[in-house]
Amino acid sequence: MKVLERLTALRDLMRANGLSAYIVPGTDPHASEYMAPHWMEMSWITGFLGETGTAVVTLDRALLWTDSRYYLQAEAELQGSTVELMRESDVDCPSIADWLKKEIINRQSIGVNPEMYSVNGYKKLKDDLEDGGLELKSVDLIRPIWTENRPDIPLTQLYEYEDKYAGESVPDKLRRVREALAEKRCDAAVVAELDEIGWLLNIRGRDVDYTPCVIAYVVLEAERCTLFIDARKVNAENAAKLQAKGITLRGYEEVFPYLKNLQAKGVLFDGNRVNEALYEAINPAIARKVNASPGPLQIMMSVKNEVELNGEREAMKVDAVALTRFFIWLEKEAFKTPQTEITLADKLHEFRAMGKNFTDESFCTIAGWKGNGAIVHYHAEPENCAKIEGNGVLLLDSGGQYLDGTTDITRTVWIGDEKAIPAAVKQDFTLVLKGHIALAKARFPKGTRGNQLDVLAHQFMWQEGITYGHGTGHGVGHFMGCHEGPANIRTDNNTNPIREGNVFSDEPGIYRTNEYGIRTENLVIAVPAKVSERTTGETYYEFETITLCFYDTRLMDFDMLTTDEIAWINDYHARVAAETLPRLNKEEQAYLADKCKPIQMNK
Amino acid sequence: MKVLERLTALRDLMRANGLSAYIVPGTDPHASEYMAPHWMEMSWITGFLGETGTAVVTLDRALLWTDSRYYLQAEAELQGSTVELMRESDVDCPSIADWLKKEIINRQSIGVNPEMYSVNGYKKLKDDLEDGGLELKSVDLIRPIWTENRPDIPLTQLYEYEDKYAGESVPDKLRRVREALAEKRCDAAVVAELDEIGWLLNIRGRDVDYTPCVIAYVVLEAERCTLFIDARKVNAENAAKLQAKGITLRGYEEVFPYLKNLQAKGVLFDGNRVNEALYEAINPAIARKVNASPGPLQIMMSVKNEVELNGEREAMKVDAVALTRFFIWLEKEAFKTPQTEITLADKLHEFRAMGKNFTDESFCTIAGWKGNGAIVHYHAEPENCAKIEGNGVLLLDSGGQYLDGTTDITRTVWIGDEKAIPAAVKQDFTLVLKGHIALAKARFPKGTRGNQLDVLAHQFMWQEGITYGHGTGHGVGHFMGCHEGPANIRTDNNTNPIREGNVFSDEPGIYRTNEYGIRTENLVIAVPAKVSERTTGETYYEFETITLCFYDTRLMDFDMLTTDEIAWINDYHARVAAETLPRLNKEEQAYLADKCKPIQMNK
Repeated sequence: MKVLERLTALRDLMRANGLSAYIVPGTDPHASEYMAPHWMEMSWITGFLGETGTAVVTLDRALLWTDSRYYLQAEAELQGSTVELMRESDVDCPSIADWLKKEIINRQSIGVNPEMYSVNGYKKLKDDLEDGGLELKSVDLIRPIWTENRPDIPLTQLYEYEDKYAGESVPDKLRRVREALAEKRCDAAVVAELDEIGWLLNIRGRDVDYTPCVIAYVVLEAERCTLFIDARKVNAENAAKLQAKGITLRGYEEVFPYLKNLQAKGVLFDGNRVNEALYEAINPAIARKVNASPGPLQIMMSVKNEVELNGEREAMKVDAVALTRFFIWLEKEAFKTPQTEITLADKLHEFRAMGKNFTDESFCTIAGWKGNGAIVHYHAEPENCAKIEGNGVLLLDSGGQYLDGTTDITRTVWIGDEKAIPAAVKQDFTLVLKGHIALAKARFPKGTRGNQLDVLAHQFMWQEGITYGHGTGHGVGHFMGCHEGPANIRTDNNTNPIREGNVFSDEPGIYRTNEYGIRTENLVIAVPAKVSERTTGETYYEFETITLCFYDTRLMDFDMLTTDEIAWINDYHARVAAETLPRLNKEEQAYLADKCKPIQMNK
Repeated sequence: MKVLERLTALRDLMRANGLSAYIVPGTDPHASEYMAPHWMEMSWITGFLGETGTAVVTLDRALLWTDSRYYLQAEAELQGSTVELMRESDVDCPSIADWLKKEIINRQSIGVNPEMYSVNGYKKLKDDLEDGGLELKSVDLIRPIWTENRPDIPLTQLYEYEDKYAGESVPDKLRRVREALAEKRCDAAVVAELDEIGWLLNIRGRDVDYTPCVIAYVVLEAERCTLFIDARKVNAENAAKLQAKGITLRGYEEVFPYLKNLQAKGVLFDGNRVNEALYEAINPAIARKVNASPGPLQIMMSVKNEVELNGEREAMKVDAVALTRFFIWLEKEAFKTPQTEITLADKLHEFRAMGKNFTDESFCTIAGWKGNGAIVHYHAEPENCAKIEGNGVLLLDSGGQYLDGTTDITRTVWIGDEKAIPAAVKQDFTLVLKGHIALAKARFPKGTRGNQLDVLAHQFMWQEGITYGHGTGHGVGHFMGCHEGPANIRTDNNTNPIREGNVFSDEPGIYRTNEYGIRTENLVIAVPAKVSERTTGETYYEFETITLCFYDTRLMDFDMLTTDEIAWINDYHARVAAETLPRLNKEEQAYLADKCKPIQMNK
C-alpha cells in the first residue's frame, strides 16, 4: 500500500467518523526520544522518514509540518505523495492549530490518537481548536488501516538492573514513591515514560536505540505495583524476580481496562509525561494531575545516589581511555588510509566497545568536519558524508552507555597543519572554552535554576555578539536516557531548581555556517560546595566535572584567557592525567602526558 | 470607635450577610505601592499601622498576618485589641487560606471587598478556599461601618504632564494602545493602576507619597476615552485641556455602572493589575484577560522614549550635584554638630530640593548606620534612629522625583578614621562592587530576561557563600513609580524580556546582621549594543549607566579587582567628573576631582 492509498483509506475512515481532519504526530505513547518503528505513523502516512514532523490530513489535502533540518529530505521523500510540505522554521508558517482554524469550517471535528499526545499537549491543542470553534476527538484511525507490514512493538527481553549498579532496591524506591504520593494526598500513580519505569523497577531492555529501556506501563498503588508488558518479553526467571520484589505482571494493553476499574483516593500523573489515552481511562473523580510538572518520580530519578554517581565517575574513566586511544589513532594511524566522518565515528565506537560494561552508544555520534560541524544536529550518511582531508576543524560529539553510567562528551580538534589554524577559529574556540569554564566553576545557593546560570556560559561570546541556538546543558540519565529532565541549563524559563546529585552537560558552542562548528562539552555533577567561613549560611552547590579528556590546546588563544582560567585548565589536565594514565600503556601514557602538560603562564 | 467596637460592628454585619469570616487585606483598589489613608482598612480594623499585613476576622477570633519586619510593631500595636499576631515569615505559619480551611467548617462563606484584590489574586484565593469546601463572596463590609473619621480619597489637583517631558502626545499614545488592543481582538480596555493612567493621559498629581499619580480609573474604547475621577480634582483649565485631547470626564465611582453598560467586542484587562470589582462589573461575554501578564500598556510605559531617556539622564546630573554637595557637607561640615540617620536624610533632601525640576523624594530615604544598614527595609524613626558617632559604615539609599525623571541611588561610605576600616568590610564592599560592575558591563541578545542576568551580580559573593535577600534590579518609572514592572533583574522566574529603553537599578548588597549593610546602586538604561564584526547577527543590548556619583574607593580591596574592573571604575569616575564638574563651584570641583582620580593599576 502506498501513501496515496493510505491517505484514501484514512479519508474513508475520517468520513465514517465524521471528521474533517486527522492529525498524525511523530510521537509514541511514551514520549520517547528514540521511537520504535511500530509507532512511526507519521512516516507511514506521509512517506517522510525524518524523525520530527506532524502530518495533517483533511478530506482533500495532506500536509507535513517539519523543521528546517528536514526540508531537503522531506522535499525528496514527499515527491508524488500529494503531501504538501509546511516549513515550520519559516516565520510565516502557520501553526497547525492556526492552519486548521483557517482551513476547516466552524463546528467541525478534528481527530487524533490520544496515545500520541501528553495530557497537557492534548489539552492545549483542544483549547486552541475550540478557540476557533473546532472540536477535538480522540480516535485511533491508523490502527484499523495500518494492518499490513506494521512492525511489532519490540519484543527484546527485559533484564534486571542489579542493585550494585542502581544503588537502591525496588522495595526502597516503591516505598519512597508511595510516601511522595501520600504527601500529595494520592495513593496511586500512572507511569508511562520508559526511563521512569526502568528507574522505578530496576529493569532495562533493548527495545529502542541508544536508551536501554523496555516498553511497558506501570500503575503503582498502595498495596500493589503492576507492570503492563508483553509477556513474551519476560522470561520465567525475570518474572520470578519481579514478583519477589512485589511486582505484578499484566499484558501491555491491559493498562487501559485496568485504569478504568481502578479504585483509589487519588491517582497522580504528570500531565507532560502521561498520554491522554491513559488519562481518559481514569475516573475523573480520582485523577490528580501534578500541579507543576515534574512529578515526584522524575525528580527522584534525576537525583542520583552515591552508587550511581560513583558508577558515572567510573564510566567516565573508561570513556577517557577510549577517547585517548581514539585520538592517538587519529593522529598517528588514521590518515594512512582515507577517512570520512563515518569511519571516524565507527573507529571511536570500536574503542569504546572495548571498555568494561559498555553496552551501546548513548546517541548517534556527531562527527562534523568543517562546515558540517556547524549543523547542530548533523547526522552523516554514508552517501553524503565528508571525507577528512587537508586542514580543518573536527567537531566530535559522542557518548556511551555503560552498565554503570551514561557518558556524553564533545571535543573540537584541529586536523592538519597546526600553523594553518586561523585566528578566527582560535578566538571562537577560546570564547567557547571561557564560557565552558565559567559554568564549570559556578557556585550557587540551593534553589538556583539552570536558566540563572546559563549566562555564565554565554557571557564572553555575547560581548562579541555571538551566540548558539541550542541549550547549554541537559540533564543526563544513569544508564538511561542521555537527555533527561527535569532541570537543565538553558536560557528558557524552567521552574526546576538544580538538585544535589543531578548530572548535567556543560556544552557551549559557536557555529559558522559552511565553515566550522566548535563545541566543548563535559558532564558535571551538582555537589555540595565548601564555602568560605564568611558565608551568610545558605546551602551552596558547585559542579564536579567528571568527564576526563584533554582539550586541544593548539586551538586556544592564550592571550584571551585569564590566569584563573589557565590555572583551571592546568588543574583539569592534571586530573585527566592522574585519573587516566594508570589505565594506559607506556606509549599511550607518553601521548596523554604531552597533551596534558601545563600551559605556561606569562602574565 | 476603638478596635473592639469595630470588630463587634463587623461581626454583626458578617452575621447579617451569612459570613463565617471576613478578610481585610492591606491593599487599595489600584494595587498601589504607596496607599492613601482612605484605604487603610486593615489598619483601621486591627489597630496595626504597619504597611504590610492582612487581617482575618471570624465570629470569635481576629488575626493579623504580617512579616518579620513588623513583628515588634505589631505586638505593641495589637495590645488589648484581641487581634492575634500570625508571624508569616516563620516556617510553621499557615497561609490564610490554609488557616481558614482548618478553622472554618465546610460549606461556609468568607467575605472580601473585591476592590482590594486583583482579578488573579481573587481567583487564586477563591480556588484555594473552594479546595477546602469554602465559598468566597464579594462584599464590602468596611464601608458601612467605617463612617466616622474615615479620611477622604485624596483631592489634590490633577495637572498636565507636558509633552516636552513625556515625549509623546496623548492622542499618539491612545492610537498606539488602540492598535495593540486590536491585535488582541479587543476594542476596549480597563486601566486601574495609577502609573498607567498617568502615563496614558500625561497627567500627574500629588495624591500619595513619593509617586506623582492621581487617583482615577480609565476606560478606553475605540471612539472614546473616559477618565473616572472626582470632579473636584480637575479645574476648568485642566478639564478643557483633557477634553481637547479626546478625554471624557466622569465621577470616580461611576466606573462601575459604566462598565456594566459597556458595549464592546472585547474588553482587555491585566488580571494582575485590575481589581476584581471592576472585572465583576464587565459582561463576562466580552471580558478578555491578557493571557500572560503584563498587558500592552505596562509594556509601552516601560519602554521609555528618547525624550524620557534624555530627561532621566538630565535628572541624574542634577541628582549628582546634590549628592556631591551632600558628601562634601558630610565630610567637612556635618559633624560640627551631632547627626543622626534622620538629620542626614533631611540634609540630603535639602540638597536635592535645590535641584531644577525637583518635586519630591522618590521614596523614603534609607540612611542605615552600622547595624541598621543590615536591615533591608530599614526606616529610621525620630525616637529610635541611630546617632552617627565614631567609625562605621553608612548605607544611604535615596532618590528624587524630578519633572524630567525619577532617580534612585545607593552609596555605601565609610565615616571616621580610614585606617579603622576592617578587612572584612573591604572584602564585602568589593564583592558587591564586582557584581555591580559585571551586571553593568553585561551584553545580551534581545529576548534575554532579567533572571538570566542576575547571576552576574551574585557570582562573586556566591563563590564565598554570601548572598542577599532582595532583588538585584527593579524597573524604574519616568517621573512616576520608583519601582515599575514588568521586567526586573531578580533570581525569580519572570517571563518578561528586557526591552530597549527599559530603565533598571543595579543594586547588589551584603548585609551583616548587627554589624553593617553594604549596597551599591546605579540606574542603567537598556540600549542597543555595538558588537564586533564577528557577530552571529542577533540584536544585542547593553546597559548605559546613567547614575553619576563616585564610589568610596577607601572601601575597595584593590587586590580583589581585575585590571578590567579597575579600568571600568576609572572610566566611570572620569565620566562622573566630566558630567558633573561643570555644574559645581571651584571648591566643589576640587573635592569631586579628588574622589574621581584614577585608581593606579599595579598589575
